[in-house]
Amino acid sequence: MAKGIPSRSEDYSQWYNELVKKADLAEHSDVRGCMIIKPYGYSIWEKMQQALDKMFKDTGHVNAYFPLFIPKSYLAKEASHIEGFAKECAVVTHYRLKNAEDGSGLIVDPDAKLEEELIIRPTSETIIWNTYRGWIQSYRDLPLLINQWANVVRWEMRTRLFLRTSEFLWQEGHTAHASSQEALEEAKKMLDVYTDFAENWMAVPVIKGVKTENERFAGAVETFCIEALMQDGKALQAGTSHFLGQNFAKAFDVKFASKEGKLDYVWATSWGVTTRLIGALIMAHSDDDGLVLPPKLAPIQVVIVPIFKSEDELKAITEKVNELMTEFRKHNISVKFDNRDTQKPGFKFAEWELKGVPVRLAIGPRDLENGTVEVARRDTKEKQVMKIEEVPVNVLLLLDEIQKNIYQRAIKFREEMTTRVDTYDELKKVLDGKAGFVSAHWDGTKETEAAIKDETKATIRCIPLDGVDEAGKCIYSGKPSARRVLFARAY
Amino acid sequence: MAKGIPSRSEDYSQWYNELVKKADLAEHSDVRGCMIIKPYGYSIWEKMQQALDKMFKDTGHVNAYFPLFIPKSYLAKEASHIEGFAKECAVVTHYRLKNAEDGSGLIVDPDAKLEEELIIRPTSETIIWNTYRGWIQSYRDLPLLINQWANVVRWEMRTRLFLRTSEFLWQEGHTAHASSQEALEEAKKMLDVYTDFAENWMAVPVIKGVKTENERFAGAVETFCIEALMQDGKALQAGTSHFLGQNFAKAFDVKFASKEGKLDYVWATSWGVTTRLIGALIMAHSDDDGLVLPPKLAPIQVVIVPIFKSEDELKAITEKVNELMTEFRKHNISVKFDNRDTQKPGFKFAEWELKGVPVRLAIGPRDLENGTVEVARRDTKEKQVMKIEEVPVNVLLLLDEIQKNIYQRAIKFREEMTTRVDTYDELKKVLDGKAGFVSAHWDGTKETEAAIKDETKATIRCIPLDGVDEAGKCIYSGKPSARRVLFARAY
Repeated sequence: MAKGIPSRSEDYSQWYNELVKKADLAEHSDVRGCMIIKPYGYSIWEKMQQALDKMFKDTGHVNAYFPLFIPKSYLAKEASHIEGFAKECAVVTHYRLKNAEDGSGLIVDPDAKLEEELIIRPTSETIIWNTYRGWIQSYRDLPLLINQWANVVRWEMRTRLFLRTSEFLWQEGHTAHASSQEALEEAKKMLDVYTDFAENWMAVPVIKGVKTENERFAGAVETFCIEALMQDGKALQAGTSHFLGQNFAKAFDVKFASKEGKLDYVWATSWGVTTRLIGALIMAHSDDDGLVLPPKLAPIQVVIVPIFKSEDELKAITEKVNELMTEFRKHNISVKFDNRDTQKPGFKFAEWELKGVPVRLAIGPRDLENGTVEVARRDTKEKQVMKIEEVPVNVLLLLDEIQKNIYQRAIKFREEMTTRVDTYDELKKVLDGKAGFVSAHWDGTKETEAAIKDETKATIRCIPLDGVDEAGKCIYSGKPSARRVLFARAY
Repeated sequence: MAKGIPSRSEDYSQWYNELVKKADLAEHSDVRGCMIIKPYGYSIWEKMQQALDKMFKDTGHVNAYFPLFIPKSYLAKEASHIEGFAKECAVVTHYRLKNAEDGSGLIVDPDAKLEEELIIRPTSETIIWNTYRGWIQSYRDLPLLINQWANVVRWEMRTRLFLRTSEFLWQEGHTAHASSQEALEEAKKMLDVYTDFAENWMAVPVIKGVKTENERFAGAVETFCIEALMQDGKALQAGTSHFLGQNFAKAFDVKFASKEGKLDYVWATSWGVTTRLIGALIMAHSDDDGLVLPPKLAPIQVVIVPIFKSEDELKAITEKVNELMTEFRKHNISVKFDNRDTQKPGFKFAEWELKGVPVRLAIGPRDLENGTVEVARRDTKEKQVMKIEEVPVNVLLLLDEIQKNIYQRAIKFREEMTTRVDTYDELKKVLDGKAGFVSAHWDGTKETEAAIKDETKATIRCIPLDGVDEAGKCIYSGKPSARRVLFARAY
């Protein structure tokens, strides 16, 4: 077990917090609710950004940048939007500091009060749709397929590293279309992009679904989501894609002339994923010894630890290692040679396990004699001795194998942790015992959903897109239901 | 001349503003002082980021992310730092909105007042050095070589797209070292990186120098800078690298144990470049027909315009173009085929000239017959007809040639626009006439510098690092001077 970190079974929540800190991913800052993303954690975000950015561009999107500040009146223009965000807005009211006349120190200059307060963007629909009004006149200007990488602020009282912080990093796509159908297709397409990323890069299986009205994004007509399951049986929303209808176009008066010359409001989508994905990654795969990172997103994919007693031994090992590193780099494998002479191999092994490096090589003098290398994989902890000339190709295959294995393991876990229930008692029993996703019938009303949430703390995570029609009775009200939905307690 | 844009000689300032807008680079937002970076402009920033990020990583730096908010008291800890920034701080005072009880609309909730105001970072020395205190104990933790890509806010009353906006994007490096000498070397190394980027990527020649005390960064011991010359003869500071001494380590109590076990304050640097570089790029190279972009940073390097009257002609041309595009992409050349049937070739030519695409190809039915292509370069407007099979290699060479040519042109311009003067009258005459850099003797005092600035609006841009010792007399005070400095009016 990693030093100073409780096991998952002892205290899952504390295990997560300590792991994030001990593995040098992030830490709390002195600024309430804001975190510091440390270099190792940030390099995971960079890998995520690179992969997602390419996916966005491959689907025809371009990046742009809109202001951090949103005038208060803009936020208020779409009624349900402001209702959703008013309670968590950081508000800029002044633009200057000065020295107090009584010498008591630095104060906010009362003469520098803004005429209209500015809100730090909690999301950018309003400022962007206010801008789109100038960019869209006719169907020829559509679709507009724009993404932004940015920081946003939603004031939070109870925060959690990566999972819930007042400031977080994200991307937000904002697209404009000439028809309802095209916008709806875009929203679904981006949900597919997110699914592809979650499953094939993060190795985290997700359920694609639709949110209920209660859980919908403030201002959306329909919110699509991907939901993942963490190792403690709690669900985590990993990404959302919204069909916004004409809500923002109406609020900001954005109309276009159709091919037929008819004026109509523009149709919209927005979609986003955040640094919370790093939290999902950790919670989905890691174990009591530390992080388990999917090879495709691991900042360091292979670490090489030399086993040596003398300078001469290290020198001989280094020569061989340099050859190996050249081979790895040819295959675009990121590799680190941990040749510190201040730490013992055992310490290094534990450190790189803690940091989740997928493959570890160890080479000692006897290996040099035999032309071998010890290869250990992080996911299963299995070790094997390989001929050194076979290492580059084998490690390449092994990285692929690890990527697949942790994905399969997560799928198997989710299958075991998904329970079908037909009564409310069963739902409560599963939530309090085994946890996980619970598939049950629901009558489709806000009231039932709210009552269940109130009594069990579980929410409807989504109405799965691939769900089948199945007549049944709501577990709470007994009223008829046409399909099952997924309940879970969630992050 | 491009439509709706005055020529440079008519109104340089208006030429710049209109060009930025007409070429779809950026526009003003409704939020005072904040701009919207449009996709075409943002893609130049992405190219800049990619190149710089690689240079930073190649010199051993890693990226991280620190909070947007800085507690007011932190900013106040380093005396000259707060003096420099107090007057331009955006201040967050509240964290919630609510509906007014009198039904008058959305108001800032007075119950949600922050105990301590938060400043939107104008730069991150304070929050970062407060964090480094927890990261640095001994010389083993040093050097710490960290960079951050972020948005910052410095409230501005008079703004200019890219050149001066309240919110801007930048990178800020913050490094920590065990010795004064090492920190000083780092500050100079990063100045060299910026010089390399400005000259070899942006094709903008720069003068490396040291700032005078008046112009130094608030909190620095020494500020190094690169200064570029724009086509109107005004200077533009393109990047700065600061040697911070132990100022921030002292303000935030960051000490380290040396190899000898002695406790000492840590030595620091910080360095940054911003989206202002896009402004520099435009002002340095562009002409009355539009942007002239250096091929290495051009979002589109080659545009192909088909000349056709019928569908069949377009089809035949498209086949040939597809072959060409495959070749270009093999060579990593970004290419666009403008096959719109809604616009005439002349319109397209003007549009891509406006947007600064370095090379334009035109292919018509007669070209197909002859196996030729017309190749036009943006920088000199020269056209030549080439054999189609020679196009890929020739264009590759041409892009390189354009990159070099606009750099040489800028160097020649700067040489012509650098004047040595030995009297104050001459200085004033040059500033009011020819403009440009003026090399003159200065007595080294704040007072003389301030008086000259007051009377001429020119500042000392820098004391050039490659300047030679030369005994002389200050043009203003007549006092002795050991070296010349560079004066100019500046952006």
